[in-house]
Amino acid sequence: MSITVVGVGLIGGSIGLAARAQLGAHVKGFDNSTEVLDRALQLGAIDEAAGSLEEAVTDAEVVFIATPVGVLSSTVAAVLAVAGGECAVSDVGSTKLATVAAQSDPRFIGGHPLAGLESAGVEHARADLFEGATWYLTPSSNSSGVIYDRLYRTVTQLGAAPQAIDAEVHDRLMATVSHLPHVLANVLVDQAAKCLGDDGDRLPATGPSFRDATRVAGANSGIWTDIYLSNRVALSQCIDETITRLERVRDLLQTGDVAPVTAWNDEAAELRGRLLSVGTERGPLHELRVSLPNKPGVVATLALELSGAGVNIQDMALYPVPDMSEGVVALWLTGSEEAHKAEQIAVGLGFPVVHMPTLG
Amino acid sequence: MSITVVGVGLIGGSIGLAARAQLGAHVKGFDNSTEVLDRALQLGAIDEAAGSLEEAVTDAEVVFIATPVGVLSSTVAAVLAVAGGECAVSDVGSTKLATVAAQSDPRFIGGHPLAGLESAGVEHARADLFEGATWYLTPSSNSSGVIYDRLYRTVTQLGAAPQAIDAEVHDRLMATVSHLPHVLANVLVDQAAKCLGDDGDRLPATGPSFRDATRVAGANSGIWTDIYLSNRVALSQCIDETITRLERVRDLLQTGDVAPVTAWNDEAAELRGRLLSVGTERGPLHELRVSLPNKPGVVATLALELSGAGVNIQDMALYPVPDMSEGVVALWLTGSEEAHKAEQIAVGLGFPVVHMPTLG
Repeated sequence: MSITVVGVGLIGGSIGLAARAQLGAHVKGFDNSTEVLDRALQLGAIDEAAGSLEEAVTDAEVVFIATPVGVLSSTVAAVLAVAGGECAVSDVGSTKLATVAAQSDPRFIGGHPLAGLESAGVEHARADLFEGATWYLTPSSNSSGVIYDRLYRTVTQLGAAPQAIDAEVHDRLMATVSHLPHVLANVLVDQAAKCLGDDGDRLPATGPSFRDATRVAGANSGIWTDIYLSNRVALSQCIDETITRLERVRDLLQTGDVAPVTAWNDEAAELRGRLLSVGTERGPLHELRVSLPNKPGVVATLALELSGAGVNIQDMALYPVPDMSEGVVALWLTGSEEAHKAEQIAVGLGFPVVHMPTLG
Repeated sequence: MSITVVGVGLIGGSIGLAARAQLGAHVKGFDNSTEVLDRALQLGAIDEAAGSLEEAVTDAEVVFIATPVGVLSSTVAAVLAVAGGECAVSDVGSTKLATVAAQSDPRFIGGHPLAGLESAGVEHARADLFEGATWYLTPSSNSSGVIYDRLYRTVTQLGAAPQAIDAEVHDRLMATVSHLPHVLANVLVDQAAKCLGDDGDRLPATGPSFRDATRVAGANSGIWTDIYLSNRVALSQCIDETITRLERVRDLLQTGDVAPVTAWNDEAAELRGRLLSVGTERGPLHELRVSLPNKPGVVATLALELSGAGVNIQDMALYPVPDMSEGVVALWLTGSEEAHKAEQIAVGLGFPVVHMPTLG
């Protein structure tokens, strides 16, 4: 099988590694940077560095375009212009409608693997990056069935779980669960800086809820400006919906009534549990909060004991007090058996544990 | 010294333990629940369980009121009615203006220790809960200097760092860095549930940014309804400011211009770095992102190696991919030396590390 990767960064390089390892494919790479191509060759992410887009694409059965979102549409068009009549062409951009709407070619089907946003560059590429990850495919009414079938099988062989989704629904979904949280984080740091700034320098370290809510504030502009702008239609609509919801909360607070505020907050607890339990197969997510002194070794002791007992932590967060003298580790575990085991271990180590109500 | 705690939960019980251990104080406790008082006696959080508020307060030099926020103002008034003429009376409520504005008695000064929101009940009380924590005090123009001095010294002896702040500024600050993040988390889960619900069940697990942004969604209504409502003036104002900011972002996105979106995002990165570095004394916070397979033992191995080398993790978050097959651990460390040590250790274990740009 012959696969071509256009744009050999983290995602492109990982596709190359996986295609070579798991499909035994011959992988050609093309990138604007010859330095990147040399690196990709050294790392075994590609078999062959192409000197031009045409040379890269001519004989390929599948082409994955993994360039930055801002130049995706033009690259897709350029690839289709030189690709063979039976070639499957896809991309890995994190927004889809702009690229998909610009193309009616039956050989092109948009894609988006949910993997690898944390680091960049072919030096971080891994053959197992897509192992078990959702990989969205956005076929349209123009798409060829043969092309879709080949792409579906290729993505599966790369280790991912392909899932068909309408491009517009995809973008709305990503706007809500990913792009909007980034916007809110940015807004929140701006507002806090303004509030704290007004009152001078003596003001305090911010707390754990602020830290969590703003973890993604100011994410890499090299990636995120493109994402915000390419998804600006869906994202603007999401922002308007948030504004409407915030107006409702403000009005609710101003009534001063206890019951509706409680109901609103309880509903949020239930919804969060339900959302986070989607995709977990071995039962609902349990949350334990373990109090412990924040000294070197304590987190390690806990993590080591848990892993020694075969407990797999699904998610974890450390909530230090402002001066770091003590902290609470929140652990998320799948299923009540796993949660019970973890609780016994933490208590056995002398750490107080609160088992939060399980939802969803 | 004689200290009285009214409401012997996590905070009241911890004040009792600390006052007995660190001040050698005689601690009386009063609580509506005799069961709680018995428990507090057993745990050594109080020396003596009072049968009435009057009995609890009559001879006290300092009274700390640690009841739920909803009944704070009435309890403060009841305590002042039976307390001695030289008694210092304070509370530990997380909003201040409502309680402080309701009192002109020179013996009362509001307080708020930044500690212990993660669990509840006297059984989680700890003598070191306030060690190094900021403890806000909100003296007003009516407050007695002698009372303030005694309260300041007592709080210091409990291990905390007292800090005077205007009650209104305090509430605006808490609204911004704590209550608003909770509101946004609630709004976000509601919006995501609606968006996902519209498209049926086939939709995916949410990602790490969503998880972080909604960690505090639906926090314990028993505590949070009171907090939202008692701080509704400042919080409503904060919500209005957020709405204005969101409208601005939406308008910015709709222009489609790259430069201002990048500038807005870069500014957020800078502000977050500055805000989170407040209060860190040994240099700026460094963030490392370590890629690792999400298997039992891997987090433990990393944490153990770090602690073995004396590296103290200030904050940590695990970002799993949806299926948990691999993940990225974000580590926050204070100072470049600590960060460098941690990076070397992670790389030595074979985990790829990205050292994020340091800000602030």
